[in-house]
Amino acid sequence: MVVAGVDPGITHLGLGVVAVEGKGALKARLLHGEVVRTSPKEKAEARVGRIHARVKEALLRFRPEALAVEEQYFYRQNELAYKVGWALGAVLVAAFEAGVPVYAYGPMQVKQALAGHGHAAKEEVALMVRGVLGLREPPSPSHLADALAIALTHAFYARLGAGKALL
Amino acid sequence: MVVAGVDPGITHLGLGVVAVEGKGALKARLLHGEVVRTSPKEKAEARVGRIHARVKEALLRFRPEALAVEEQYFYRQNELAYKVGWALGAVLVAAFEAGVPVYAYGPMQVKQALAGHGHAAKEEVALMVRGVLGLREPPSPSHLADALAIALTHAFYARLGAGKALL
Ligand SMILES: [Mg+2]
Repeated sequence: MVVAGVDPGITHLGLGVVAVEGKGALKARLLHGEVVRTSPKEKAEARVGRIHARVKEALLRFRPEALAVEEQYFYRQNELAYKVGWALGAVLVAAFEAGVPVYAYGPMQVKQALAGHGHAAKEEVALMVRGVLGLREPPSPSHLADALAIALTHAFYARLGAGKALL
Repeated sequence: MVVAGVDPGITHLGLGVVAVEGKGALKARLLHGEVVRTSPKEKAEARVGRIHARVKEALLRFRPEALAVEEQYFYRQNELAYKVGWALGAVLVAAFEAGVPVYAYGPMQVKQALAGHGHAAKEEVALMVRGVLGLREPPSPSHLADALAIALTHAFYARLGAGKALL
């Protein structure tokens, strides 16, 4: 099962694609990883337009059966929430055009899926991602690591028939 | 000068296009008005994908020289801010693809431009929009009225050489 994961952001957007084995212990191969960077000096439409183009290109190239994003929680940071929303809007347009359904999981679900308990430390999750993908080092930068973690999380729940659509 | 205006929202997105005379008192003709509606029952990517498609279609049809949106202010409503952000992200992708630059103005600037003072009531702005467009009634529904007001606001500032790019 090929799954794409996105860590949405307007200055840094993590984007990873993995091929996951259909059963047995969670095991996967890294197909693609990148961080889309944009600058506040660019026009807003250019930033969001580039995010859309890069995500769409990856979806059309790797044809994943799902795209997963982390559910976002914002505390008293409306402007941040709004701009992260722009980035996710661009991702959703790309997913819609490529015909890829979108799923979302919260941080506790990521930890549960990858480390086996909902209160694992970030480092523990990173080590599990490394192990599942058979990498020498935990993936970096952190936005790519987050994107890969969310892709693997979707694979974990989808294999259980418990994928969770973005609402 | 042809200008598009958008009142961004995920359940209701107002979209208007006006042709504004180049000088003299602000006077314009309504070229297009619609409200794009989506339902929480739809998949997120379908909602955002439709917003993108409808805005892009209008931009390609009317070829405005600018697209204007109202600056958003959110107070303790992060989830709302995030989802309005999705909608604006879709609008920005459409603008980028159509080569239309995006501008933004705050509510005070709308009132200043259309009613001549920054503390005008909403009804006063609606009456001015009606007058500028030569309509019999103020435009409705309110999402379309807001979209037209922001388009006319951009025309007002652009004629003064004071257009304000979205940041
Ligand atoms: Mg991150």
